[in-house]
Amino acid sequence: MILTPCLPFKNATRTINLKAECLQPLGSFKIRAAANAIESTDKKLLHDGIITASAGNFGQGIAQAGKNRGLPVHVFVPNTAPQVKLESLINLGATIEKISFEDWWEIMITRSTGRKGCFIHPVSELSVILGNGGIGLEILSQIPNVDTIIVPVGGGGMISGIALAIKALKKKNVRIVAYEIESSTPIFSAKKAGKPIKVERGASWIDGIGSTGVLEEMWPLLDQLVDDVVVVSHSDAETALRELALKSHLVSEGAGAVALAAALNVKFTGSKVVSVISGGNIDMTTYSRIISGINV
Amino acid sequence: MILTPCLPFKNATRTINLKAECLQPLGSFKIRAAANAIESTDKKLLHDGIITASAGNFGQGIAQAGKNRGLPVHVFVPNTAPQVKLESLINLGATIEKISFEDWWEIMITRSTGRKGCFIHPVSELSVILGNGGIGLEILSQIPNVDTIIVPVGGGGMISGIALAIKALKKKNVRIVAYEIESSTPIFSAKKAGKPIKVERGASWIDGIGSTGVLEEMWPLLDQLVDDVVVVSHSDAETALRELALKSHLVSEGAGAVALAAALNVKFTGSKVVSVISGGNIDMTTYSRIISGINV
Repeated sequence: MILTPCLPFKNATRTINLKAECLQPLGSFKIRAAANAIESTDKKLLHDGIITASAGNFGQGIAQAGKNRGLPVHVFVPNTAPQVKLESLINLGATIEKISFEDWWEIMITRSTGRKGCFIHPVSELSVILGNGGIGLEILSQIPNVDTIIVPVGGGGMISGIALAIKALKKKNVRIVAYEIESSTPIFSAKKAGKPIKVERGASWIDGIGSTGVLEEMWPLLDQLVDDVVVVSHSDAETALRELALKSHLVSEGAGAVALAAALNVKFTGSKVVSVISGGNIDMTTYSRIISGINV
Repeated sequence: MILTPCLPFKNATRTINLKAECLQPLGSFKIRAAANAIESTDKKLLHDGIITASAGNFGQGIAQAGKNRGLPVHVFVPNTAPQVKLESLINLGATIEKISFEDWWEIMITRSTGRKGCFIHPVSELSVILGNGGIGLEILSQIPNVDTIIVPVGGGGMISGIALAIKALKKKNVRIVAYEIESSTPIFSAKKAGKPIKVERGASWIDGIGSTGVLEEMWPLLDQLVDDVVVVSHSDAETALRELALKSHLVSEGAGAVALAAALNVKFTGSKVVSVISGGNIDMTTYSRIISGINV
């Protein structure tokens, strides 16, 4: 795990700061939470190995941390996960099981897999949420006058951890903003309805964010901690992916491109913005098509 | 200018460290030297503006530093420089003049452009060389037990600055290694001949390193300071460019890919290696073709 840099990104009118979690070992912020989760689990419970359900990044973190301890790791993955993430899991010694997105989401809700072993939830485990808090602490030390932190929402674990760290330090002027992609807006919809509701999950080249609804057990946290939600279009996300390559020289996954696009929203003009580039694990074929400007 | 991270890069057998200068504002280490050069120049001499000869990155640094002071900047560029670098220069308010690589190299040797203004040499100016020394100091603070530092050679300004910083701190066990691409090996050839000799400059998608010979005025420094030279093939450089995207999530220019390829040379097995990823300014069409695995 490294202290990731907070890189300035300039355009014609202003400078925002990008917390480059894509530079973490294994290419995403998830290594922070995974290491923390295994360290905080009673050793006896780990006897039959570890099970998780993860689109890839959290699974990789758990696979790495499990490997370090000589523990077998089994990961349920939705069949929408990109090949590059699955290969990383296998290279780290984990076994993987592909299931439909619906069945995978069912595990996220029920924690039930029918398999022996210690299940570590990728989002709502307290140790996972707290493991993400370090990102918030680092941002405050790097950009002390930050007033807006923009964070992706997949399950909500990262944004909750960051927000809890900010609240713990009583930084009341810092707004916590979630971003989503237009094809799936569970938190935007829940905020509007005042409770989690089922939403469509449209096709997208962007994985890792977007689901069919906010997890019930995460709603109390998200309801209190998230101050605003920005929804980004695919077109803006594609432009942002290219900008991250051209100007910041970062290879970002889709969710990270949405981070930049959200931060450039005019509503944040005049704010001191930090946006979290959550990871960099993206299929190279998709990536090269988008950055070369060919429509996908 | 930022303190760039030194990122671990793991393969099956070992871990090397990548000094990610591609994350600097403007995408390369050259901002360090350019800012230092303008700061150290007598203000009276800058009255008629600044002239330099640069394939792009140093020019960008000078253009930015000149713009900050309200000084006009004129940059002579070889017609082999990629469009993306020229556009950056223009966006920073510089005027550019395209000339043949031979004419451009002539300016590098003679410092004579026939144009009024203060000429700042991109390589052999003492203030430029010393401006690069900061990279060496940062590496020593980040990886205190480093024993091999691998650095690109274009004109030799960066490697000289880094080596001088290391020598100043009396770190006698640190070896300074230059890397070059197979299509142009001025320093490898000069080391072999014991003096600068004219070499071929073959076609390559990699710009920024490689010339037709070591500058005479740089030879005494390079002769003394460079302990070894590694020559990298285009095939290894292309593989390294993909690895930097896939595993480190860095967009690197060709010279940076050569840095990784050089560091993976078996001769450095067992060494604590830091390799300098000099910059990230690369044409997106070339880049996307290489990372998608299509031959260019």
